[in-house]
Amino acid sequence: MWLSVVVLVQGLLLISNSVESQSIIDTLPGFPGKLPFKLETGYIGVGELDEVQLFYYFIESERNPKDDPLVLWLTGGPGCSGLSGLLYEIGPFTFDYANSSGNKPTLELNPYSWKKVANIIFLDASVGTGFSYATTWEAYNINDTSSTAQTYEFLRKWLMAHSTFLVNPLYIAGDSYSGKTVPIIVQEVSNGNEIGHWPPLNLKGFVIGNPLTHEIWDTNARLKFAHRTALISDRLYQSTKRNCQGSYINPDPNNTQCVEDLREVNECIANIYIAQILEPNCAYSQPPKPNKLWSLSPHLDDDNFIDILHSTPDQVLEPWCRCYNYVYSLIWANDKSVQKALHIREGTITDWERCNNTLTYTHNIITSIDYHRNLTKKDLRALVYSGDHDMSIPYVGTLEWIELLDLSVKDDWRPWFVDGQIAGYVTIYTEEKYSLTFTTIKGAGHTAPEYKPKECLAMIDRWFAYYFL
Amino acid sequence: MWLSVVVLVQGLLLISNSVESQSIIDTLPGFPGKLPFKLETGYIGVGELDEVQLFYYFIESERNPKDDPLVLWLTGGPGCSGLSGLLYEIGPFTFDYANSSGNKPTLELNPYSWKKVANIIFLDASVGTGFSYATTWEAYNINDTSSTAQTYEFLRKWLMAHSTFLVNPLYIAGDSYSGKTVPIIVQEVSNGNEIGHWPPLNLKGFVIGNPLTHEIWDTNARLKFAHRTALISDRLYQSTKRNCQGSYINPDPNNTQCVEDLREVNECIANIYIAQILEPNCAYSQPPKPNKLWSLSPHLDDDNFIDILHSTPDQVLEPWCRCYNYVYSLIWANDKSVQKALHIREGTITDWERCNNTLTYTHNIITSIDYHRNLTKKDLRALVYSGDHDMSIPYVGTLEWIELLDLSVKDDWRPWFVDGQIAGYVTIYTEEKYSLTFTTIKGAGHTAPEYKPKECLAMIDRWFAYYFL
Repeated sequence: MWLSVVVLVQGLLLISNSVESQSIIDTLPGFPGKLPFKLETGYIGVGELDEVQLFYYFIESERNPKDDPLVLWLTGGPGCSGLSGLLYEIGPFTFDYANSSGNKPTLELNPYSWKKVANIIFLDASVGTGFSYATTWEAYNINDTSSTAQTYEFLRKWLMAHSTFLVNPLYIAGDSYSGKTVPIIVQEVSNGNEIGHWPPLNLKGFVIGNPLTHEIWDTNARLKFAHRTALISDRLYQSTKRNCQGSYINPDPNNTQCVEDLREVNECIANIYIAQILEPNCAYSQPPKPNKLWSLSPHLDDDNFIDILHSTPDQVLEPWCRCYNYVYSLIWANDKSVQKALHIREGTITDWERCNNTLTYTHNIITSIDYHRNLTKKDLRALVYSGDHDMSIPYVGTLEWIELLDLSVKDDWRPWFVDGQIAGYVTIYTEEKYSLTFTTIKGAGHTAPEYKPKECLAMIDRWFAYYFL
Repeated sequence: MWLSVVVLVQGLLLISNSVESQSIIDTLPGFPGKLPFKLETGYIGVGELDEVQLFYYFIESERNPKDDPLVLWLTGGPGCSGLSGLLYEIGPFTFDYANSSGNKPTLELNPYSWKKVANIIFLDASVGTGFSYATTWEAYNINDTSSTAQTYEFLRKWLMAHSTFLVNPLYIAGDSYSGKTVPIIVQEVSNGNEIGHWPPLNLKGFVIGNPLTHEIWDTNARLKFAHRTALISDRLYQSTKRNCQGSYINPDPNNTQCVEDLREVNECIANIYIAQILEPNCAYSQPPKPNKLWSLSPHLDDDNFIDILHSTPDQVLEPWCRCYNYVYSLIWANDKSVQKALHIREGTITDWERCNNTLTYTHNIITSIDYHRNLTKKDLRALVYSGDHDMSIPYVGTLEWIELLDLSVKDDWRPWFVDGQIAGYVTIYTEEKYSLTFTTIKGAGHTAPEYKPKECLAMIDRWFAYYFL
């Protein structure tokens, strides 16, 4: 009884603070006519004094908003905007590249948006990402723990303000760096439900794509991947494994054989576009930054493209590199008329960046593997997908940590199909009430829905429906 | 002296029989205006009574015909026409797919033709291939030995009739099944030169792409390739290796574990387009033929596409499959006005096929590895290239037989570049006067120049020039 009162009061407090703003967007610069879907944007304040204002884009399912899953999408980074996931991966619109120019990006519908089958909240998290901001300098100091707690707080407040969605199946989703944060948030939601946090969330599971799970393991896995994909030779692979003894990051400088092997490896992969090894890699404006996979942060870093692309805003650069696509978001989201249409609060951020690499963000949790292990004890569904041509977080490393969870294999590595073509290979693991579906997306890069939109929509549709892929 | 007279008489005999026909082609149906390059077609009779009439297309280098290499190109199969290599790989023109229809294929220039840097003879060999024919039924019964001997005879006769090219550096080239025939022909030429056959050929070396070298080894290598490219799982790969003990073709039916593993493997790869594993695979009209890599012939087999494509000649099929491209050659080369323009002898063949799978051809040499081993003792240059996304003759098997040659590694697995992008990885092997350059073509399929024309032209240009790739 006492507990219930506490929960209720806590709930009321949440309600009173929860909605800072909430706007329905009917039109957007660059999109002809009225938006043919429901888009809401808004801020929700989190933290003790709502000093962190998290910005979101909410899009209703075009099928059945009342019953379809509710998906919270986090783009990763850390520091990559929810808008990047929206514009380049699973959102309802994207740029019409054929008819866009640097001065005038135009938008078109994405026929393979996940909003075909789900309600989606794209969140600019953590603070400092996209349009999210803080009202104090201190609040910008965050880490994996505090930022995921804030995302959980956001989710509760958002659902209090949109209580009709409390009954929808809830999935936490994201890719890349979200491989660390999503399992933590899922754990928070699960714990919160267990101790009676208000409101109870109808958590069903989570979805992670090319997820960063262990900062060192995933990076080490690049050696195996580079070998399998013919970027390094058999001899060099065997020699590096032997000489570096499985660890390719910050090698002991006295281990000259390992250092020499890694030098050769780096020479082989320096000019690869690591997000999709078959696509062209374009030079940064300044300074050139060759890949050094074994010493650099494993995160993709494309913000230096901004310079080169800003300098030629009016023309489509040929030959094409995927990174050129990203300049359109930069131009569009920094346009004052766009910000006004999105109801961005004036003066809250100076420049919108697709991925903000200057966050004051401490990686205080090196791996989410323990969270995964905990979650296997719960009544949850997990979908882990990997674009199999991504070297930044390669599928071979993902398979390694999944094997460590020691789950039972229910269905072992079978092809699945879209339009009669093999779209990838799926393995289903189970453990009592827990199930984990792992699948490759054949030919896809790091952010798989950006490369294989049709296949990824089919994947998520079938998985939400409890079908076999 | 006696020997010289014999050689001379033999030479004169060759001359007298050599040229059956020889025509300069100025225009071709489907190509607007006059051909902007020198195209000659013709027949050369080989065999004791010239009973085998081999048809060729000769294209002069557009750079310096007098000094540029002379390349004899063989498309493989056995039974695949030289015209296929010309139209889809390295020839001066190809189909203008955007402006072609099934009824009216149109041609356009190929900006990446190897004729930019070389004189090329595309040969319809063996007899029964393309427009080549025999005047007796017996002459259609051929095998690796007799067909390569005929190709050698063709080459001598062709050079007698085009004696200005006797001084050009000569390279024998081809891909796929030509991995078997090219080394045999090179051996014949080398032997012929040594024993004073007339004319002496200025043989410099040979070029083979995704070459079939050992019918069993290359097919077995598909298991490793399928594993590396995420088509089968680690578990299944290890289990199959263990249970089948390295041999995946015609397994002992009593070895149930191996049979079961291979069944699973076949299930994983049944619907892959094996010539480029990331491209879509389209259904044959009848009957459906799933891949069964471990029991079928290793050769690509696309002639059943003819039916499905003949049934819809007027429309471009969407979504696209690469095999649809091949129907244009079928329609074009069977057009009577085209055959007249090419100076095809009337009544000599009924239907032109890109790849004739009904040859009476005995595979009497299971592997060309012994020929390669012999050739390493000679003053020759070899270029072996592999599209690294081809599962039909995977690069991993090619590397295995190259390693068996036990050559010295001069330059070990380095990336090479075209337009600042990694085009592949190269290793250079040497042994006294012999050198072998092995390179992957990143992202390419079985017939690499068809997939990566710019990269393959850069490769051949640099290699002919004795540059590093």
